[in-house]
Amino acid sequence: MSSSPIQYAQAHRGVFLQQLFDLIRIPSISTEPERAGDVRRTAEWIAAEMTRIGAQHVEIMPTAGHPVVYGDWLGAGASAPTVLVYGHYDVQPAVLEDGWTSEPFEPTERDGMIYARGSSDDKGQMFIHIKALESFLADGGTAPVNFKFLFEGEEEIGSKNLLPFLQANRARFAADVCVISDTGMRDISEPAIVYTLRGLTYMQIDIIGARQDLHSGGYGGIVHNPALALAQIISKLHNADNSIAVPGFYDDVLPLSDDERIAQKAQDIALETLIEETSIRASWGEEGYTLRERIGARPTMEVNGLLSGWTGAGSKTVLPAKAMAKLSCRLVANQNPMRIYELVRDYIASIAPPGVAVTVSLLSLGDPAIIDRSSPYMRAAVSAYQRGWGGTPIFTREGGSIPVVADFKRELGVDSIMLGFGMNTDGAHGPDEHFSVEMFYRGIDTAICFYEDAAR
Amino acid sequence: MSSSPIQYAQAHRGVFLQQLFDLIRIPSISTEPERAGDVRRTAEWIAAEMTRIGAQHVEIMPTAGHPVVYGDWLGAGASAPTVLVYGHYDVQPAVLEDGWTSEPFEPTERDGMIYARGSSDDKGQMFIHIKALESFLADGGTAPVNFKFLFEGEEEIGSKNLLPFLQANRARFAADVCVISDTGMRDISEPAIVYTLRGLTYMQIDIIGARQDLHSGGYGGIVHNPALALAQIISKLHNADNSIAVPGFYDDVLPLSDDERIAQKAQDIALETLIEETSIRASWGEEGYTLRERIGARPTMEVNGLLSGWTGAGSKTVLPAKAMAKLSCRLVANQNPMRIYELVRDYIASIAPPGVAVTVSLLSLGDPAIIDRSSPYMRAAVSAYQRGWGGTPIFTREGGSIPVVADFKRELGVDSIMLGFGMNTDGAHGPDEHFSVEMFYRGIDTAICFYEDAAR
Repeated sequence: MSSSPIQYAQAHRGVFLQQLFDLIRIPSISTEPERAGDVRRTAEWIAAEMTRIGAQHVEIMPTAGHPVVYGDWLGAGASAPTVLVYGHYDVQPAVLEDGWTSEPFEPTERDGMIYARGSSDDKGQMFIHIKALESFLADGGTAPVNFKFLFEGEEEIGSKNLLPFLQANRARFAADVCVISDTGMRDISEPAIVYTLRGLTYMQIDIIGARQDLHSGGYGGIVHNPALALAQIISKLHNADNSIAVPGFYDDVLPLSDDERIAQKAQDIALETLIEETSIRASWGEEGYTLRERIGARPTMEVNGLLSGWTGAGSKTVLPAKAMAKLSCRLVANQNPMRIYELVRDYIASIAPPGVAVTVSLLSLGDPAIIDRSSPYMRAAVSAYQRGWGGTPIFTREGGSIPVVADFKRELGVDSIMLGFGMNTDGAHGPDEHFSVEMFYRGIDTAICFYEDAAR
Repeated sequence: MSSSPIQYAQAHRGVFLQQLFDLIRIPSISTEPERAGDVRRTAEWIAAEMTRIGAQHVEIMPTAGHPVVYGDWLGAGASAPTVLVYGHYDVQPAVLEDGWTSEPFEPTERDGMIYARGSSDDKGQMFIHIKALESFLADGGTAPVNFKFLFEGEEEIGSKNLLPFLQANRARFAADVCVISDTGMRDISEPAIVYTLRGLTYMQIDIIGARQDLHSGGYGGIVHNPALALAQIISKLHNADNSIAVPGFYDDVLPLSDDERIAQKAQDIALETLIEETSIRASWGEEGYTLRERIGARPTMEVNGLLSGWTGAGSKTVLPAKAMAKLSCRLVANQNPMRIYELVRDYIASIAPPGVAVTVSLLSLGDPAIIDRSSPYMRAAVSAYQRGWGGTPIFTREGGSIPVVADFKRELGVDSIMLGFGMNTDGAHGPDEHFSVEMFYRGIDTAICFYEDAAR
């Protein structure tokens, strides 16, 4: 008699780890044009691996950018649920000189951690699901659910080709639920399921004064300096209590329920932790909310960039002709990113001084998401962590954005279950990114449990 | 019998113009290291020219940067005044592609104008004084005053080596008065003598938040964004009436006298002119003062540059670790630039928010200047314009800074007479810089008259 999927997975841990190392070694840096061949090679590696473990249909699907790798196994039959597994095989740039202890694309095990770019974000986490399916299909077995894998190669550069790709392939990706493993927890003993994601409205403010840079001696004091006007406008975006001053901005914000506030409080970020992580001197933010709530449950307005006039060394007495700011809002359910753009644009127009021309243009949008914590698939996820990981998960609210979650909901009608297997401290985009070997193994067990529980 | 200096000058106008063309053809761009040879060649050209016209002692004097060209003629004797003539032989960069109609270093005459880099600023204006001395000395003549020429090669890069050079050569440059031709007028029929110059305090504000850029999703809303903090600080530098909010800032400002206000009013800048020059939509500035007064008689605070976070195309959701602004004040008599730095630094420290580290560093200083309009040399200048130019000059207040004026006063004890022969619209630092041929000729006549009148 053949072993159970869990037994198979546990017996093959060492092999799985070496396979993951092979996947990590290909430097699939999506933002570097000269790495396009490596990105492609990674897609081919994954396609070959899915074919090897028994996927029924495997295909490298072109997009306007790097390809999507598709693989499915639909042998559970029409009465079983179909799970769409989303992950991304591209990674952030990394070179040893950035401060890595060892070569970023040569995975190195130290103190139970895999040090390598992509180890946690997201190769290690996405590979878990391939290994889960392998464990079901090994020795002639079957899986309890149908699988559709969608692994994209452009997550680190904004997934800009994914939405049109999804819209062109709705039938192909039809599913009952989506699973994404690309989030983290604070401690291995406290697994976490992210149930909200912030959306995004990213804008640019451009201020034009004179038709060209002026001499600050000849014109200083009689024309409105665009850099000054920009600072004056930005200073009016927040109220004294650090809330956002744009009228109507909070109108659609879904308030926290009492039990959510209690849960958020229990998960609050210690000021000492924040100071240790960032070396800032004091925290900041909207009065009346805890640090955790400010990150997870409240919208924000950040200046992402400023540029005007002379920015080199030393002094140049220019009165700049123009000034620019990048401005973005993180949004929460049920704010509408386009509506927020319109509100910000109109507010800035209303406070723009008469001597300069001010425009606010839209650069990108992403919907916020909130996922029902009481759905059957969410219950399956809770149970899977309890059985496969060894702990009851907490529900957390994520400050960042995973726009595909809203895309999957809108285009395919499916909720996403954020089955995170990483740690918040994995250093996803920095030097010495790492992923716990133990969490890789427990992740496979938990994924197997999730697919079993999802079928019940 | 020999001709008068004026007759000589008028008879040689065509030759003088061709000589000026030769001087202009050498591209003495002081800021470009690869032009150092051309800068040197220009100094040698001027030295040779001064020797040729009869200067007694000519010397190319090294500084820590480009050399000073010195030339003197002291034949008027100890009882005659000694005039120090200051000018600069270096020029701003220029290439045809910047929008020039003809090659910037091939002087071209069109509609009575010499189009070339340096034609007005300052080769054309400084050369006038060499031609005036030539006119006195021609045919065995003598000049009514002693001449000391000081032509520097670093004015366009801040004259940073001139002050130590002056301090090391005080005796050499001892004089009764200094003459500088490096300013302009509004109309050829309205010659102007600048009698005040604004000083400068140039600073940099640096704001540091976290030790490295943060993800705006993970930290947005709980740390004080340095770009936001910078904008908030800058927005508090001016009051609602556009006066400067730094306590004590205006304490030492010499108020305009009643007759000065009347004169300033008569010279006011028409709003239409300002709009035509700059294409701005509305003027700006300190309430209670005319445009001319804001430029010439009031101190200002300008943001010269801004830099923070992501400034490229598109969107990057960074929460910047730092933000920088270049900030400078134009100052009027009797403000002290170092005192102003201290006031601004202390004010910004007093409004700096607790979550970020704010430093204000000093980049450069320049004293404001005000020159007595009733001195004998100033009276000589008025008379010189009347006789040599054909019009009574107005007294104007300059918005820009010529720090050597304060340096000459402090180090040598001499007032500077700003014998401007250019037009405000000559386009000194832009493409198609030009200088009126007629003004070059009248300038030589006026300079001759000034030296004659100064000796009386």
